[in-house]
Amino acid sequence: MRFVIIGGDAAGMSAASRARRNDPSLEIVVLEQGQDVSYSACNIPYNIADPERTIDDLVVRNAQTFREKLGIDLRTGHRVEQIDRDRKTVRGQTVQGGNFSLRYDALLIATGAKPIQPAIEGVDSPGVFVVKNLEDGRRIKSWLNHRKARRAVIVGMGYIALEMAEALVERGLTVDLIKPRPDLLPWLHPALMQPVRDTLVAKGIGLYDGHPIDRIESQDEALSVISGQLVLPADLVIVAIGVTPNNHLAKAADLALGIGGAIAVDRRLRTSDPAIFAAGDCADSYHLVTGQKTWIPLALRANRAGWAVADNVCGGEVELPGVAGTAVFKVFDMQVARSGLHEAEAKEAGFDPVVVQIKSKSRAGIYPGAQPIYVAMVGDRSSGRLLGAQITGTDQVAHRINAVAVALLAKMSVAEFCQNDLAYAPPFGPTWDPLLTAANQLRKALAQ
Amino acid sequence: MRFVIIGGDAAGMSAASRARRNDPSLEIVVLEQGQDVSYSACNIPYNIADPERTIDDLVVRNAQTFREKLGIDLRTGHRVEQIDRDRKTVRGQTVQGGNFSLRYDALLIATGAKPIQPAIEGVDSPGVFVVKNLEDGRRIKSWLNHRKARRAVIVGMGYIALEMAEALVERGLTVDLIKPRPDLLPWLHPALMQPVRDTLVAKGIGLYDGHPIDRIESQDEALSVISGQLVLPADLVIVAIGVTPNNHLAKAADLALGIGGAIAVDRRLRTSDPAIFAAGDCADSYHLVTGQKTWIPLALRANRAGWAVADNVCGGEVELPGVAGTAVFKVFDMQVARSGLHEAEAKEAGFDPVVVQIKSKSRAGIYPGAQPIYVAMVGDRSSGRLLGAQITGTDQVAHRINAVAVALLAKMSVAEFCQNDLAYAPPFGPTWDPLLTAANQLRKALAQ
Repeated sequence: MRFVIIGGDAAGMSAASRARRNDPSLEIVVLEQGQDVSYSACNIPYNIADPERTIDDLVVRNAQTFREKLGIDLRTGHRVEQIDRDRKTVRGQTVQGGNFSLRYDALLIATGAKPIQPAIEGVDSPGVFVVKNLEDGRRIKSWLNHRKARRAVIVGMGYIALEMAEALVERGLTVDLIKPRPDLLPWLHPALMQPVRDTLVAKGIGLYDGHPIDRIESQDEALSVISGQLVLPADLVIVAIGVTPNNHLAKAADLALGIGGAIAVDRRLRTSDPAIFAAGDCADSYHLVTGQKTWIPLALRANRAGWAVADNVCGGEVELPGVAGTAVFKVFDMQVARSGLHEAEAKEAGFDPVVVQIKSKSRAGIYPGAQPIYVAMVGDRSSGRLLGAQITGTDQVAHRINAVAVALLAKMSVAEFCQNDLAYAPPFGPTWDPLLTAANQLRKALAQ
Repeated sequence: MRFVIIGGDAAGMSAASRARRNDPSLEIVVLEQGQDVSYSACNIPYNIADPERTIDDLVVRNAQTFREKLGIDLRTGHRVEQIDRDRKTVRGQTVQGGNFSLRYDALLIATGAKPIQPAIEGVDSPGVFVVKNLEDGRRIKSWLNHRKARRAVIVGMGYIALEMAEALVERGLTVDLIKPRPDLLPWLHPALMQPVRDTLVAKGIGLYDGHPIDRIESQDEALSVISGQLVLPADLVIVAIGVTPNNHLAKAADLALGIGGAIAVDRRLRTSDPAIFAAGDCADSYHLVTGQKTWIPLALRANRAGWAVADNVCGGEVELPGVAGTAVFKVFDMQVARSGLHEAEAKEAGFDPVVVQIKSKSRAGIYPGAQPIYVAMVGDRSSGRLLGAQITGTDQVAHRINAVAVALLAKMSVAEFCQNDLAYAPPFGPTWDPLLTAANQLRKALAQ
């Protein structure tokens, strides 16, 4: 029995390692087109922030460990170009130019996602970067070091854009953020977005949302991002406007695609071909709240899906219930957390959403260091169900969202959520945690 | 309709305020024997730590606000001495020595708890204090200021004892902790207790668990706590060995008492007399995990029960599902959190507990500031149900426990808990949060 895995990052290497633990005799082959496997992509901005650290610090386990300790046939520099479903064979090219072909009994596509490249003139100029893999990180660090970059423009305002803004400010650069559409984080409740915007402005970051980009000019190693009359000079430009699933192999093999072009998989991670699984950023998943398909490329679900594929390849019947859409990031001292649906998503999914927004304190009001904390919470008027929440603030925000994530898996009503016996001590919150205050108010609003 | 409340702290004033919001015409009388109402008892140790702050900072709302803004007939200095159930009347004495008697339609007993006074010779000496109400706080602060206290002995090692130890070390005192039974926190998994012990020792605190106390000697304003050959000198002694419900009124009125002498109430907070409710530290409650009665005197459940009583007095039919036993405290930089049952409690409740204990990191391993975090998690072998968890560590511990608290309300299995879509970003945890790592291991252990 041969288990072939295309892609050696989170989902792929999680599947390989777990399959080995499940079955010491299974033949496991991983085909990775690059040289890096099993690295922490999420840490790239923090690594870039620190000139003392090398990007290779981000390698969690190197290829040798997988080969020697786990007995996984890990082949880096192997680019798969075709999946022949009839012959259960993958074919491709090595980095040296040789061809290879390999039969599989079970196949996992774990090809991840790739950054979206906008159709902007000059986006391919030297000094314009995306932030996706270690090689991108290496190039950015090298550019920062050798060009003595002083100004950066970041195209995009998603969480990677914001994490990179922080990293570059930490490195002493002046940073501008620009994007065509209005609003810093359009999915965030306006009252929760304002403190994020304030934080960025206080750090001297230029915020140019609602600015369509005409072109990136490059002259004598000096870059400029042009939007109408606005000219933003830069020594480097980061493009971080989102990612799109690497679906070309699946598409060419005529596998069903789902939302956003992600490979469609069932709850057991099977594609439309029962011998082929897909997991990680290239695959879709179910949303716990809507029950519908969604595509949320994040690290935990990639790891979890990799495990589930390994279990199912080894004879298991593991079904994943889906994702709650939980996410958290920080930018400077501001933390932003979400789980479940925001108002517009809830409407789109056919719910009748009611939203409350409250401001409370991160600790007991009279405890030193208490900071404002903002919560928005969404419930469904007809069923009373909790649909989602968002939190922003500078103190003890991130882990608070997990109470909501658990409640969403449990399909709790807002009224039930109000009854949660959450922890209280003055250093950690008011007696009624901000989440309970929001839930109590949402319960009232739902009853009206 | 007259709603009479005995006791003007968390449960009592929560009930009074909510009853007023529910019904502007209700006659609400609160009888409080002391002068302080609605204060934050949980903040007393932190206030004592700070010589610049007065204890009156802890008053959340003063009596005048309740009287004038909420129209609540709040009578301080009124000690109730008898509940005459036949005549629906309470009788008592005012602080000035006058008698009063008052008919009620609905009565709430919210008399709280009182510190346990051990039968130790010399426990009534000047300089020996308990920590329960604002008056205790005033006395301790005054003693610290006027006696220039340099050494303290604390009898007890529960969370109030530890919070007081921190407060007195902050004030520059040398502190010893002593208690008769072994183990700092006997309910805490040994592997989780060790870092707490290490923290205390590193702060120079003497830990004398397993030391029965013979007597407290007092000579020329110098105190000594004597245990066999051990003599611990002190300028003040704090006794913090736990609390017991203030049940004497209920007992004398022949109301049913429950666990630990707490007043027995149903899920609607009714005592064995349907016209009389009890809430807060004087009353028992249901445990979410066991379904049995329990007595856990904590602030959130007191506030929540006060609200429920008010709603039920005003015609509602509010039932409280119960408490998960969630609690958190910190001592210096060490945070300790728990929810649900520990192993011994689980056995006692008739479960077949399986415990796993893991050590992980508070942040991604390569993110600056990542600290060890210790999790113990308990599941039931026969049902697969999650029964409880404990967490200790110095970074981002407190709010993590709430994911467990929510799962306990939802009666999740360990296998379900493993599927939680918890938040991940490098500053806030590894990709698999320590809770998920513990749950994954517990799931395996349950399957064996």
